[in-house]
Amino acid sequence: MQNKGISQAVIGRLPRYLRYLGDLRENGVERVSSQELSALMRVTASQIRQDFNNFGGFGQQGYGYNVDYLYTEISKILGLDHEHSFIIIGAGNLGRALGNYLNFERRGFIFKGIFDMNPELEGIEVRGVKIRRIEELEGFLKENPVEIAVLTIPKTGAVGLVDMLVSNGIRGIWNFAHVDLDVPKGVQVENVHLSDSLMKLSYNISRYNGSKKK
Amino acid sequence: MQNKGISQAVIGRLPRYLRYLGDLRENGVERVSSQELSALMRVTASQIRQDFNNFGGFGQQGYGYNVDYLYTEISKILGLDHEHSFIIIGAGNLGRALGNYLNFERRGFIFKGIFDMNPELEGIEVRGVKIRRIEELEGFLKENPVEIAVLTIPKTGAVGLVDMLVSNGIRGIWNFAHVDLDVPKGVQVENVHLSDSLMKLSYNISRYNGSKKK
Repeated sequence: MQNKGISQAVIGRLPRYLRYLGDLRENGVERVSSQELSALMRVTASQIRQDFNNFGGFGQQGYGYNVDYLYTEISKILGLDHEHSFIIIGAGNLGRALGNYLNFERRGFIFKGIFDMNPELEGIEVRGVKIRRIEELEGFLKENPVEIAVLTIPKTGAVGLVDMLVSNGIRGIWNFAHVDLDVPKGVQVENVHLSDSLMKLSYNISRYNGSKKK
Repeated sequence: MQNKGISQAVIGRLPRYLRYLGDLRENGVERVSSQELSALMRVTASQIRQDFNNFGGFGQQGYGYNVDYLYTEISKILGLDHEHSFIIIGAGNLGRALGNYLNFERRGFIFKGIFDMNPELEGIEVRGVKIRRIEELEGFLKENPVEIAVLTIPKTGAVGLVDMLVSNGIRGIWNFAHVDLDVPKGVQVENVHLSDSLMKLSYNISRYNGSKKK
């Protein structure tokens, strides 16, 4: 792959491009210019061209981009052209919500298992997958290679699990625990810190209030 | 407030500072230098000083920062020194997970109501709050001023609700729907696009694989 030096900011914008291109494709649009995409997405056309230039530009500007081609290429860059297996650790409301989310499956993320400390949850099904006890997790991973672990457990539990997960083949952690995880090189972590996001909203509301009052 | 020109990137880092400072405070640490904070948080000390300089610097560098003071000041900046009421629209697993999340309450986010289209959910309690039918939402807002609406519903529903929410006093939207929302000036939106985050993880796993294979 030639995408080594690309910033996480650019990567972070690719799913949004994919979302808009998917909508265009569903509506039968075949070509789109960076100006049209710019108007739809409310980013500058030059930002779009710069982002795309990281990946070779995706085709001639004069004619606009081929929607289907662009959609396919961005999907490939994001690794969506092959399947990714995942398990969920923590079968509370959040874990179950993620297990039930059909969109992930459509993108090639295959839900393989869900685990919890609470023995009372054992056997309850989440989209056809039975909740297992956390004690079974290590054995499960040894028999079923899994790529991604989704952590929807409290932070103390999350920190304690990382080494075992990694030594049993997990290569990506989607971390909802409110803690930064230490992982060896080559293991990827993507954090979703919900409280942080809510605080950012609180800041923006408070700040707007403040400036209105003046 | 004098925080007008501060970038969202800086704001986005404040909750993480708060998390580390909260841990230090709980462990009885009274002062911390930018070097110590840098080692803990794995960002450069100069980044920390630059971030803090946006808010006047928070005290003398030679002696380090007063942990309690820094914690309190950052809390204030984030608007956590007063309460924020919120309702949740969409009582599926994700909506219920957010309603049950006690940490939000500890930060001053007060859970006022939860609404769903599905009449079968009516009356079920989420942390002591009964699920109401979506038809009651407008009347509820007219009688109970609420600051934040959390949208955990599909995108078509989310887009259709925005105008009603805003004209009934909602000033911040915490949006989990997979769509960009159009809001009038003065209304804040904070998006949590879970699929986008999962795709970013997928990219980083695939890219690492690719570079390993070479």
